[in-house]
Amino acid sequence: MAYYKDLREYLSFLKKNDKLRIVEREINKDSELHPLVRWQFRGLPEEQRTGFLFQSLTDSSGKKYHCSVASAVIGASREIYAMGMQCAPEDIHKRWLEAYRRPLEPKLVDSGPVKEVIHWGENLLEHGGLNEFAIPMATNGWEGLPRLTAISWHTRDPDTGVTNIGTYNGYLFGPGLTSCGTAHNAHLRLHLERCRQKGIPLQAAAVIGGVPAVSMVSVTKVPFGLDELAVVGGIAGEPLEVVKCETSDILVPAHAEIVIEGELRADYEIPNPAMGEHLGYMVLHKLLFPFEVKCITHRVDPIWHDYISQMPPSESSTIRGIGSEGTMLNFLKNDCGIPQVKDVAFHHCAGAWRLCVIRLQDIGGVRTHNGTVWQALNASLSISPDWPKIVIAVDEDIDPWDLESVFWAVCFRYQPHRDSRIIQGRTASMDQSSVPYLEEEEVDDRHRFPTSMSGPQGASAQLMDATRKWDYTPVALPKREYMERARELWEELGYPPLKPQAPWYGYSLGVWPAEYARQAELAEKGKFDQVAEMLLAKARR
Amino acid sequence: MAYYKDLREYLSFLKKNDKLRIVEREINKDSELHPLVRWQFRGLPEEQRTGFLFQSLTDSSGKKYHCSVASAVIGASREIYAMGMQCAPEDIHKRWLEAYRRPLEPKLVDSGPVKEVIHWGENLLEHGGLNEFAIPMATNGWEGLPRLTAISWHTRDPDTGVTNIGTYNGYLFGPGLTSCGTAHNAHLRLHLERCRQKGIPLQAAAVIGGVPAVSMVSVTKVPFGLDELAVVGGIAGEPLEVVKCETSDILVPAHAEIVIEGELRADYEIPNPAMGEHLGYMVLHKLLFPFEVKCITHRVDPIWHDYISQMPPSESSTIRGIGSEGTMLNFLKNDCGIPQVKDVAFHHCAGAWRLCVIRLQDIGGVRTHNGTVWQALNASLSISPDWPKIVIAVDEDIDPWDLESVFWAVCFRYQPHRDSRIIQGRTASMDQSSVPYLEEEEVDDRHRFPTSMSGPQGASAQLMDATRKWDYTPVALPKREYMERARELWEELGYPPLKPQAPWYGYSLGVWPAEYARQAELAEKGKFDQVAEMLLAKARR
Repeated sequence: MAYYKDLREYLSFLKKNDKLRIVEREINKDSELHPLVRWQFRGLPEEQRTGFLFQSLTDSSGKKYHCSVASAVIGASREIYAMGMQCAPEDIHKRWLEAYRRPLEPKLVDSGPVKEVIHWGENLLEHGGLNEFAIPMATNGWEGLPRLTAISWHTRDPDTGVTNIGTYNGYLFGPGLTSCGTAHNAHLRLHLERCRQKGIPLQAAAVIGGVPAVSMVSVTKVPFGLDELAVVGGIAGEPLEVVKCETSDILVPAHAEIVIEGELRADYEIPNPAMGEHLGYMVLHKLLFPFEVKCITHRVDPIWHDYISQMPPSESSTIRGIGSEGTMLNFLKNDCGIPQVKDVAFHHCAGAWRLCVIRLQDIGGVRTHNGTVWQALNASLSISPDWPKIVIAVDEDIDPWDLESVFWAVCFRYQPHRDSRIIQGRTASMDQSSVPYLEEEEVDDRHRFPTSMSGPQGASAQLMDATRKWDYTPVALPKREYMERARELWEELGYPPLKPQAPWYGYSLGVWPAEYARQAELAEKGKFDQVAEMLLAKARR
Repeated sequence: MAYYKDLREYLSFLKKNDKLRIVEREINKDSELHPLVRWQFRGLPEEQRTGFLFQSLTDSSGKKYHCSVASAVIGASREIYAMGMQCAPEDIHKRWLEAYRRPLEPKLVDSGPVKEVIHWGENLLEHGGLNEFAIPMATNGWEGLPRLTAISWHTRDPDTGVTNIGTYNGYLFGPGLTSCGTAHNAHLRLHLERCRQKGIPLQAAAVIGGVPAVSMVSVTKVPFGLDELAVVGGIAGEPLEVVKCETSDILVPAHAEIVIEGELRADYEIPNPAMGEHLGYMVLHKLLFPFEVKCITHRVDPIWHDYISQMPPSESSTIRGIGSEGTMLNFLKNDCGIPQVKDVAFHHCAGAWRLCVIRLQDIGGVRTHNGTVWQALNASLSISPDWPKIVIAVDEDIDPWDLESVFWAVCFRYQPHRDSRIIQGRTASMDQSSVPYLEEEEVDDRHRFPTSMSGPQGASAQLMDATRKWDYTPVALPKREYMERARELWEELGYPPLKPQAPWYGYSLGVWPAEYARQAELAEKGKFDQVAEMLLAKARR
């Protein structure tokens, strides 16, 4: 099956699979859109979450938009993310690793649907500039300006020409002015700093509504220097068709919905309005880089693409979590050379970054050495100064994505004084637990990103080894054959569909003495008198 | 509304409220019953779990029983437990505290339905003794004998005559012989030790199928010395009708389904078959007290009452968790005098005992002092040597029963090096993380209950303060009015019913500077140009 040609083909696929809610009634983009989609993240189980397509948008002034909005269409759930990759949910990480191994260069074409309408030069604002699009308000009641969320910023390294794609929020400062909020270690930031050094602005294209693979690559921390358009091709399994920008030689997807071309200014910065962040709190006192629009190209009746972010769980914690899992898995398994690492799970409640569970597997029947467990735990802090914060190692029989399963292991395979280490010298970034809020005039660069060096109390990480240190007695559930037989009965009786949660049957963990095995065997045949006899023979005064 | 007269009236109530699944088809009590009920704990969300009534029982030999089995009818869910108390789920703890304050002495009556059939003396085994009842196998494939689970052992203090009720598992060793597995600190054990000292057996009555209040009191650690029949009356809101046993002066519920009278022997012990425990593993090498049956009385067509225990979540982790919450809440709030303690939550995944979340509330608008938080955390280890093991303090806006909510707090309100303490000198009891398995001949009393003194590596607890230490910026969700309006839209659009998860709207946590408030206010009116102007005026080079 060929990869999706464009966002529209992908949305049809979601629709056909009951993973898209199409809203025909009029919706106020500034007061109703985000709260409505938000409800599915605060009130529905993950399997009931879907993408949304809003077809009739208005705003508080009553203006009607000739533009629909697609929200939560990439990461409403892990299942939907897998649909964007055309694979099963359990194959997502495999697809990512393949894309890194076999990137495919993009294919330059002369033109494409994204050039159907072009506004530039003195006609830039003929349809209102950025105000032509129904750009929604996020974190309603707290933020100050509509927010551009699902943007893929395309830039080229001023020295090497390699394309970087990254997603950073923008705010709608005016019809020809938006912003780009990058972290200090973002790859786009490195391009920008090089331009600042040369005293020139950075040419950039903000792409809205590419195929899902563009969004996935854009949100994920792909190693610096890799051409991300080729990684998109690696995920799609075919080269991405791209066109040149009107005002620069940046290459952008030919089938995108909207491309905003312009210059990122490095010579001045503007303060942000209050901004909802993935930690679940508003962030204040940050500075943004201005983006001055030079040209807008778009399809007829364009679809504005929007993410639901902020308080987790959200669409962005799904996308970021899956990307972080792939990155950490690749790092521990391949870069650190720990083949015992089977899975890595990042949890929504931690904004998908702070809580990390590492699942280890025994190889060749040899129990993973405790030193290897700690190699993985310690190494997990190596790829970022601020995430993860809580890292838990578990055995192969634990489901790392299920907090109940993980804390079953913590409660019964972990002794705090023996199996916990606290690592100082970490960075808190936007995590408010490290330093109290500072007034604007108190904030300087040291405080904007409080670190172990700058905060009054520092930041730290906790590593927890919740693997078994030795053999255990069996898991106290009926053996597999009993549970399977009972499942047939369950279905015959017409009870609600089961979603089995691991473990769902009892299994041996190494300790199962012969006399107990013999008793169980007799019991299976109903020979209880013989079991009683065995036990009573060992009665003692 | 009067309290339930008997188990049957309660079961009718459950049925009427769709909380009882009645199984008419033939079920093998030894291979099918427990696995079937188990599935709801490994494959259904809590709100879909129900009690079960099995009406046609057989066993591996093809024998048919004139006895039905009620399983999971007391604690399949928190909602069902509340039905047993005739209150709303959020009032369970209040009901418990009232019962302690206003216990009601039982009312002795001449006879009752439990005396409809009496087997004793040389007629004890006329219907097969204990084999008359369809006593199911638990943890199928691992255990060796059918297990008596929902027994309420009634005994009287040999010195004071006060009645104690407690639930301890028994195994079916023969038609006239079962066992009682008590922990070293169980109240029944104290009665038994006094008899051992006097060189006599302890008279006891094992009650099966009393009203729900009997089961609840029996499972809960009620303070020693309180007459538990009176506490049952306190929960029911009316005195429990009791009759005298045939062979002793023990009082038992007149409307019980079955009463087994006999003697607990203190002069010899028998080894247990492998036994599934609430930690989720099989327990080996324990010793049991023999119970020699002297008389059985029961209703016509009796109902055998059964609990689903072992691997959590289970019925028993629900019942034990709720009881432990009440006990800990009462201890911290009333005995330690910490009114800031609002709720205590025990989690299934920890067998309901090892993981404890304490929710603190500010009083009179004054933030709870950090010293008070630590008073509660430290005090939480005072009522038992082995539970809880992991204790987490959270603020009032966190849902202590929702692990996602609790770990959102841990990730962003807790710094490991500052907010964590590890306490040694704890007891591991059956927790295998402290000591490796020992062969039977290696086990002595010190090892059977490994403690910090006996285990090679000791046992410990971890205390975590995940409360905010200072004011934070607002929670990054739309304000309440937006979410409420969106909920109306959601319902109008006919989307699936919402179960709101806290927090479901954004609220202030103390930091919300005037300029941001002003920007948000302007944005709510759509005056984005004024917001942009405010921010651009503060642009800096």
